[in-house]
Amino acid sequence: MTEPKPDKLTLDACFSPYLYPIYEDNHSIVVIIDILRATSAICTAFEHGAEKVIPVATVEEAMEYKSHGYLVGAERNGEVVDGFDFGNSPFSYMGEKVKGQTVVITTTNGTHAIQVARHAYKVVIGSFLNIDALCNWLMEENKNILLLCSGWKNKFNLEDALFAGAVTEKISSLSETYQHGDACLALKYLYQLAEQDPYKFLNHSSHKERLARLNLKKDIKYCLTPNQTDVIPVLHGTTLVKMEPKFSEVSE
Amino acid sequence: MTEPKPDKLTLDACFSPYLYPIYEDNHSIVVIIDILRATSAICTAFEHGAEKVIPVATVEEAMEYKSHGYLVGAERNGEVVDGFDFGNSPFSYMGEKVKGQTVVITTTNGTHAIQVARHAYKVVIGSFLNIDALCNWLMEENKNILLLCSGWKNKFNLEDALFAGAVTEKISSLSETYQHGDACLALKYLYQLAEQDPYKFLNHSSHKERLARLNLKKDIKYCLTPNQTDVIPVLHGTTLVKMEPKFSEVSE
Repeated sequence: MTEPKPDKLTLDACFSPYLYPIYEDNHSIVVIIDILRATSAICTAFEHGAEKVIPVATVEEAMEYKSHGYLVGAERNGEVVDGFDFGNSPFSYMGEKVKGQTVVITTTNGTHAIQVARHAYKVVIGSFLNIDALCNWLMEENKNILLLCSGWKNKFNLEDALFAGAVTEKISSLSETYQHGDACLALKYLYQLAEQDPYKFLNHSSHKERLARLNLKKDIKYCLTPNQTDVIPVLHGTTLVKMEPKFSEVSE
Repeated sequence: MTEPKPDKLTLDACFSPYLYPIYEDNHSIVVIIDILRATSAICTAFEHGAEKVIPVATVEEAMEYKSHGYLVGAERNGEVVDGFDFGNSPFSYMGEKVKGQTVVITTTNGTHAIQVARHAYKVVIGSFLNIDALCNWLMEENKNILLLCSGWKNKFNLEDALFAGAVTEKISSLSETYQHGDACLALKYLYQLAEQDPYKFLNHSSHKERLARLNLKKDIKYCLTPNQTDVIPVLHGTTLVKMEPKFSEVSE
């Protein structure tokens, strides 16, 4: 039962973009989560000075942008798509090449999740890399929150669930205003189990073989490192931009 | 990543009937889970001698059966639907009145889950009440297993997830044949946390208010009691019947 008490805001999690219509409303902030690796890569791009990130659903759209000279990352099934220079490794979204640029990205799961939630009240990008900034901002906004896990091809996955649990844990510690949906309650427990060593925890998961095969150890360790940036990417129309600091903060 | 190794069977969990198309295949046994209270009530009816249970999706269908003299339970939002004698409390499915009868049932979540999975290779009913019998039978079948949680109005709920975790834990202890999907890995951890006192665990959940309001304490304690029956209800066409013992067991 997730109907909130009248005086409570809600914090809930949705484990699959496919399930989003069940959780959809027009007054929640939706946090898109694709820890390995789309949302980690997007946070990284902005931290390294990217001006905009355009998430696109299909490889065809990505190719169209590439033919117009854009910097484009394209990943399917964990690997770089033929014809593109890089995929969704955060290390591809660093350095001079992204500075001041518009970067286009398409991935198996994360860009799909952004796509399904695009009409939400507000859509932001979450990862361990910006977790504290994200949670502090969410507290200021004082709205219902939906944590949308991108999963793996619309199925539940452990790393996105773990991050949703980490956000739940952090928000619980910051505020008692939120009523937690059952999914968040479960994930909070899960995160508490994994907190000491999330890498080891995920390494026991069914992803182990996939991750080892793709030689992603360095990427995974980076994607699980909290607070590498204060950037909160937010969707404006079809484009992600850096959340502008509030006026009060600017004037300080 | 849930593609199994070639030599492994899969054990996975789906948290919502709405998400079932993503997990659907034509070679898995689907275990329907609605702990509070449809699948607990169905197991109870068979244990108390019911001949058949007909799960129907709508109150209208249930009313049609009632007008033809059937014994019919109808629940929506945790309460008995007007015009019916009982809802989904397992205690309504006991005693002489069900013995030898065909019982018709419609509920908010559980009968919907049966409905969406009805074309699966095999559909069976799971609850704490028949957990050991169910798991032992699953081991004999040696097929892929999908644990389909009915949830609450297509959202994740804690009690169904907990049972899916309990089944995962039990199957892990019985066999190393199964490769666990990420959902089952997460739920197994969750169950280990709750195992000592599942009632207390659920009592910390967002369901607390709903359950207290409906005065369901006795029902919940019963629904969380393992191994009250060896019955495994199985779907034949549109009707649930008792799984027949295998020939080898009959002849013993």
